[in-house]
Amino acid sequence: MNNTIKHILNHRTIRKWKNQEVSKEILETLYEVANRTATSTGMQTASIIRIVDREIKEKIVEVTTQKYLLDAPELWIFIVDNYRNHKILEEENTEVDLTNNVDRFFAAYTDAAIMAQNVGNAIESLDLGYVFLGSVLNDVKKVIEILELPKYTMPVLGIAFGYPDQNPQLKPRIPYENRIFKDKYQKFDNYHELLKDYDKEMQTYYDLRNTDKTLDAFTTQVVKRNTVEMKKRQEIVEVAKEQGFTL
Amino acid sequence: MNNTIKHILNHRTIRKWKNQEVSKEILETLYEVANRTATSTGMQTASIIRIVDREIKEKIVEVTTQKYLLDAPELWIFIVDNYRNHKILEEENTEVDLTNNVDRFFAAYTDAAIMAQNVGNAIESLDLGYVFLGSVLNDVKKVIEILELPKYTMPVLGIAFGYPDQNPQLKPRIPYENRIFKDKYQKFDNYHELLKDYDKEMQTYYDLRNTDKTLDAFTTQVVKRNTVEMKKRQEIVEVAKEQGFTL
Repeated sequence: MNNTIKHILNHRTIRKWKNQEVSKEILETLYEVANRTATSTGMQTASIIRIVDREIKEKIVEVTTQKYLLDAPELWIFIVDNYRNHKILEEENTEVDLTNNVDRFFAAYTDAAIMAQNVGNAIESLDLGYVFLGSVLNDVKKVIEILELPKYTMPVLGIAFGYPDQNPQLKPRIPYENRIFKDKYQKFDNYHELLKDYDKEMQTYYDLRNTDKTLDAFTTQVVKRNTVEMKKRQEIVEVAKEQGFTL
Repeated sequence: MNNTIKHILNHRTIRKWKNQEVSKEILETLYEVANRTATSTGMQTASIIRIVDREIKEKIVEVTTQKYLLDAPELWIFIVDNYRNHKILEEENTEVDLTNNVDRFFAAYTDAAIMAQNVGNAIESLDLGYVFLGSVLNDVKKVIEILELPKYTMPVLGIAFGYPDQNPQLKPRIPYENRIFKDKYQKFDNYHELLKDYDKEMQTYYDLRNTDKTLDAFTTQVVKRNTVEMKKRQEIVEVAKEQGFTL
């Protein structure tokens, strides 16, 4: 097994870092990694905001509600960025401008997500550790305001990273046979029955956020996560429209 | 520079493969890679349909309009999959069920996209080559029908891979300084001016799909891509609603 795959199979979310800066050299490598990521039809519609200013960091951390991020050496936000391409069309006075349509929105959203994963893999290959921050969508409008995101842009995902100062257990996953199907979607009769062993396995896992007890069974987690609404996270489409996208 | 980063910085899209199967052992490693990918709040809401059946493959290739895919040894479609979690709630007769809301849709969409990139990186680490297929969204409804995708699922991205039988040039990218910003979004006065050198560099690139001439300047590509509508690709949100999501 090669090192890339070793690192991927050993992926753990890191939420505590040493008080050690990431060197300029490593940062520049990661910028190249981000920039080199595949992009839909070559349009390069993902960008990154790297947060350095303490006040801005505090505001973003407030949105995420993950206070430990204040100690993250690096905090990057990946965004849908159709602003540049929109401006290119504007500069040419084209009659039509589709930089803001549904298709372009989703292509850019995918661009941003895969860019984040590419950066994540590079981070781990250097023995640094990261956490993905879906929580930048807790209040999209606020993040747009904080980062001064113009029309035709949207936050997608954040990443915080540095040198790990914790060594979490590998988190159990659903057996892949229940997620990877042949030729068509495969339904199962009873998911509680199907995931019985996995439910048990999950209950052997200690999350470092609360080391006093193991996690709930997976099916219990699913119920808990999907019965309580995070109101502001329902605004994604609405805010995308305000940002000029014709969803 | 380590091998992971070397491979990422050397990423080229591969569209022609040797007539050589990918071994069962490698496939199993890639399943593990997919399954091990980070996932929003642990919900594991991305799945894969691996297409083996020739007829199904032909139907998918027709949607993508990329005929060379018929010769791809492997063809995988990454999907938003909230069906399983919805069923888990149904089995428990919960009063509320939010598996289909905006937030859960985008979380799953990101899950699927980052899973595809993780698999892509593992593929390249093994000296295989891939192409991402945003084109599975050319006709989302059709893909749903072909793969028998149930409610609360949606195609996101495809990947076709095998042993490379071509060696494309590295495709030029916008300088990263124009895509990676500090603390807030950075607007530029004139993008044609800003990207002048990059436009020229792009015109030195020969795409193996048409080796007779170099590519257009980047700004020209942006105008071409964003002035002609791909009608069916505008249906993504509409079809997501038909699949049960409350976008």
